[in-house]
Amino acid sequence: MARSCDLILSASCIVTQNDQREVIRDGALAVTDGRIAALGPRGQLETEWRAAERRDLGEALILPGLINAHTHAPMTLLRGLADDLPLMEWLTEHIFPCEAKLTTAMLEVGTTLACAEMLACGITAFADMYLNETAIYRAVDRLGLRALVGEGIFAFPSIGCADPAHFLDLARSQAEELAGHERLRYAVSPHAVYTTNQDILEGCALLAEELDLPIQIHLAESKEETARCLEMYGCRPVELCRRSGLLTPRTLAAHGVDLNNAEMDLLALTGVSLAHNPRSNMKLASGVSPLPTLLDRGCNVALGTDGAASNNRLNIFYEMSACAMLHKIQGRNPALLPAQTVLDMATRNGALALGWPELGRLVPGVPADLAAMDLTRPGLVPLHNPVSQLVYAAGGDEVRLTMVAGRILYEDGRFPGLDYPALVKEAKDMGLELRTTVAAQYAPGKTRP
Amino acid sequence: MARSCDLILSASCIVTQNDQREVIRDGALAVTDGRIAALGPRGQLETEWRAAERRDLGEALILPGLINAHTHAPMTLLRGLADDLPLMEWLTEHIFPCEAKLTTAMLEVGTTLACAEMLACGITAFADMYLNETAIYRAVDRLGLRALVGEGIFAFPSIGCADPAHFLDLARSQAEELAGHERLRYAVSPHAVYTTNQDILEGCALLAEELDLPIQIHLAESKEETARCLEMYGCRPVELCRRSGLLTPRTLAAHGVDLNNAEMDLLALTGVSLAHNPRSNMKLASGVSPLPTLLDRGCNVALGTDGAASNNRLNIFYEMSACAMLHKIQGRNPALLPAQTVLDMATRNGALALGWPELGRLVPGVPADLAAMDLTRPGLVPLHNPVSQLVYAAGGDEVRLTMVAGRILYEDGRFPGLDYPALVKEAKDMGLELRTTVAAQYAPGKTRP
Repeated sequence: MARSCDLILSASCIVTQNDQREVIRDGALAVTDGRIAALGPRGQLETEWRAAERRDLGEALILPGLINAHTHAPMTLLRGLADDLPLMEWLTEHIFPCEAKLTTAMLEVGTTLACAEMLACGITAFADMYLNETAIYRAVDRLGLRALVGEGIFAFPSIGCADPAHFLDLARSQAEELAGHERLRYAVSPHAVYTTNQDILEGCALLAEELDLPIQIHLAESKEETARCLEMYGCRPVELCRRSGLLTPRTLAAHGVDLNNAEMDLLALTGVSLAHNPRSNMKLASGVSPLPTLLDRGCNVALGTDGAASNNRLNIFYEMSACAMLHKIQGRNPALLPAQTVLDMATRNGALALGWPELGRLVPGVPADLAAMDLTRPGLVPLHNPVSQLVYAAGGDEVRLTMVAGRILYEDGRFPGLDYPALVKEAKDMGLELRTTVAAQYAPGKTRP
Repeated sequence: MARSCDLILSASCIVTQNDQREVIRDGALAVTDGRIAALGPRGQLETEWRAAERRDLGEALILPGLINAHTHAPMTLLRGLADDLPLMEWLTEHIFPCEAKLTTAMLEVGTTLACAEMLACGITAFADMYLNETAIYRAVDRLGLRALVGEGIFAFPSIGCADPAHFLDLARSQAEELAGHERLRYAVSPHAVYTTNQDILEGCALLAEELDLPIQIHLAESKEETARCLEMYGCRPVELCRRSGLLTPRTLAAHGVDLNNAEMDLLALTGVSLAHNPRSNMKLASGVSPLPTLLDRGCNVALGTDGAASNNRLNIFYEMSACAMLHKIQGRNPALLPAQTVLDMATRNGALALGWPELGRLVPGVPADLAAMDLTRPGLVPLHNPVSQLVYAAGGDEVRLTMVAGRILYEDGRFPGLDYPALVKEAKDMGLELRTTVAAQYAPGKTRP
């Protein structure tokens, strides 16, 4: 007798990303209680399961929801505010002054816009570190995505915490608020070695150990960071993190650009995950991560977008093609970073990096976090190789449906439960307000039109 | 009294790409007889012009149609057939065997698919060089795009010409067929120095001079090409072209990766245009074009996608962001290749490269070739800087409407006059046929699933 489930989704192609990397042609998925109950050839699945609802997507490709392993969600409001500038001018004259003006309402709207953007291109989970993270994770919670979140901890005040002595208390209380949450998990998140100090780093490591929490940090993003760390501490950033107790299997380090061989070995040995952000690293000219070597040494490397001010999109499809292409040209070898490796980074490796290993694959028992793409769009025809198509041809706009924990959060241009036109208007007004404020603060010649 | 026109298009933003690079907020365009009659602030234009039809696009950005300065349109049928392989294995075991099987029907369907893909992301004109170009330009003509086309000329037979002695006759007759065509122009197109010989190159130069035609050639794509040319002719590719009379202001050379300083000076001096193909160069690991130097020396450089087998998309938005990001990281300078320079490459420089200087800008009198983008999509909100948004944030999927010579060829997912579902089915069937044929020809271990 057939077993019952909430929903059967069928499509011409399912890229499972299971251990064998199976691709099921003409397949179906049974979803129940927010999890995948079963998947397989459509005929077999439809015989074995009876569904309250059925949805045949036709010529479509179902894949695990993509994972954005590094972002700063509210920075969508700063998208395109300043580009093409030397890093310090960009930061000190545009980004920092803007961030100082971000209100709670702006953080909520910026985050909601980020979630909409990510859902529309098949992202179901992400790692976030920013300022006043409480406002951010509450907005994420309302939207229904999955996220690893953490307040960025600094040696100086931020809009999230007026007194730097209180950052760890804030982190503790945020972690408590999220304890046991189904879709949100908390990470103790020292911003970087150059914006904190060794006491803070050690305090973060102890708090994370005490509460058994993940850790997020920006690490080895550029040669300038290394030089600054050497000057401040007499050692390189990875070594400072090691001394501070921050290199753990619960650690997610963003960037990992300026790494030497000993550091790569140490990261692999300690089980640290890295979030590689190819488009941000290229646009800011930060440097090129030694990614092929990191992968060879067994390091878990996921893909991230970084914030929308330095990318300027929160789209993991864009990161996948950029990642493959950057490392092929960097290594002068077209066989480097093949499509399957890159898709793994955006799914399975991302899941590990977020400390959520059951994500990033479609197998029985895991949460129903997935995306479905229209295979009739001109850029995806014909379909010689589904994995190649996802990495080299897809742009994310082909996503027709995105589901998190069994709930459809995006479908055919609409976000159920979200007043999208109102969101656009609010984001636009807030963008104008930020632009005006920052422009007023600086000499006209120094700000962009 | 108001003057009359066929159509008034209005939108919240018009990026004119005129000589002053003006951006008109809340603007409108009057179109008549396939050309732009006037443009300006909406209120003023609506007072001065009376239109048979009015279309207000609301929160939208109108820009000149983008120009794809290098592609091989029918290769859409080979998209994703083989990737991540060493160049020679990719070419000899996958691409060449497939190309040998391309029927006229396949060339037509592949080209139609390419045109649909390009229209859907705002491309209105392109340069094409392939095999049996007659089939290709007839398909382009039916779709209504603008193109510079040329039969690829080789020292050996192709599916376009069984006897290499007849290539120049074929080119002459194709050029005659297109003489006086409004939207199609012909270019004498020797494939490359390593696939022809000096007699052919000289013959091409003479024919182009006789008929006052543009010239297309692949040039300096990789160090391997240079080495092969040195071995065959004792000189580098640019020098061989110079000797053969191919360096003219009517010449469009694709790639220009392996260039030394003297060669860059020579290209600038002779007025040769280059088509830079960043995603193809990265994916095939061909090398990095010295683009900032070329631009500094006054060389006209446009953007191209190359064929869909080596990219794998025909999307100039993807090339714009890849171009900016590749050269910022290559030069370790985030100020290199600013957004306006890159947008110029995709519009005004492309127009010059195709020998059609009135394209690539929206000013009174030029053909009404344009695209309009939805500014309410999550990735384009807020709009701090329209040019930054086009280069760093847009993906092309935001295009709502594409017009060539005043005719709307794409609108909101539909291609008026094209049976798109039938096209997808044909392309899919032909893709399967090519895959099967090629797989049968080679040992199973050597072909991809």
